Amino acid sequence: MKALILTADGVEDSEFFYPYYRLQEEGIHVDVATPDGQAAMGKHGYPVPANLKISDARADDYDLLVLPGGQGPEKVRVIDNAVKIARAMMDAGKVVASICHGVQTLISADVLKGRRATCWKGVRDDLKAAGADYRDEEVVVDGTLVTSRAPHDLPAFMRETLALATATVSP
Amino acid sequence: MKALILTADGVEDSEFFYPYYRLQEEGIHVDVATPDGQAAMGKHGYPVPANLKISDARADDYDLLVLPGGQGPEKVRVIDNAVKIARAMMDAGKVVASICHGVQTLISADVLKGRRATCWKGVRDDLKAAGADYRDEEVVVDGTLVTSRAPHDLPAFMRETLALATATVSP
Repeated sequence: MKALILTADGVEDSEFFYPYYRLQEEGIHVDVATPDGQAAMGKHGYPVPANLKISDARADDYDLLVLPGGQGPEKVRVIDNAVKIARAMMDAGKVVASICHGVQTLISADVLKGRRATCWKGVRDDLKAAGADYRDEEVVVDGTLVTSRAPHDLPAFMRETLALATATVSP
Repeated sequence: MKALILTADGVEDSEFFYPYYRLQEEGIHVDVATPDGQAAMGKHGYPVPANLKISDARADDYDLLVLPGGQGPEKVRVIDNAVKIARAMMDAGKVVASICHGVQTLISADVLKGRRATCWKGVRDDLKAAGADYRDEEVVVDGTLVTSRAPHDLPAFMRETLALATATVSP
């Protein structure tokens, strides 16, 4: 199984590192793509490793997409290939897991119409405007889309993400 | 199942947060004890929540002890009750999981004679002087003692810690 994390400077550090280590704990290969393919700097000053440029990543290579939050998603969603990857993975019914502001990339990809989802409260009106059915819950699972609100939701977020990944993808 | 994390200012942020969220993901209750019972500040500037004073914690209340690293352990190991808790949990054969400098508290508790263990390389000579059989491996399991070296070992560290906890403790 292969996972892709799309992120950038300003990412909420814990929303990157918890999924990053958790996927590895499960034996899942993780690629991290940033705008320039170089390490990004977390919002709290924690350096985030990367091994790929967002413009070079391909949706077909992955089973699972993780979109952490913080201030990173505003830098991710303006990159055409990030939006293309998010749309392709949603369209293919692959597991897409977004926490906090991560949902901004899904809003830009216009893939949330009629989908139950949650996010950081500061952008919930954008989520609603994108046609989603917003819920104020620690984790919302709609098909293969998993969304959460904030760092304290990380345990529920990864529990549901891995349950879905294990159920839908052969190793 | 109940877990205790002993920590203090200067903790390596990821070595606190990964176990903290990971244990919760598994449905394990986590108490966090610091010298004054207040939130501590991570080495990278990430605030770490706490709900207990180290001097008020009791070994009997827990099945699992986690000792994260960074600069926190030097502030933890000088508190008599921290050393007492570590010794009591080791003596009782409970799961004790230490990463990086976390081992400094176990060195002060004098519970490592003849035990296979690892730690951050900067304190490996202290681990050896305490009578441990030092190994340079991502995770070392000796009975119910689990030790790792650094943040990039976190996936292996928690995989083994949870495997042991599940095998040795009834929920």
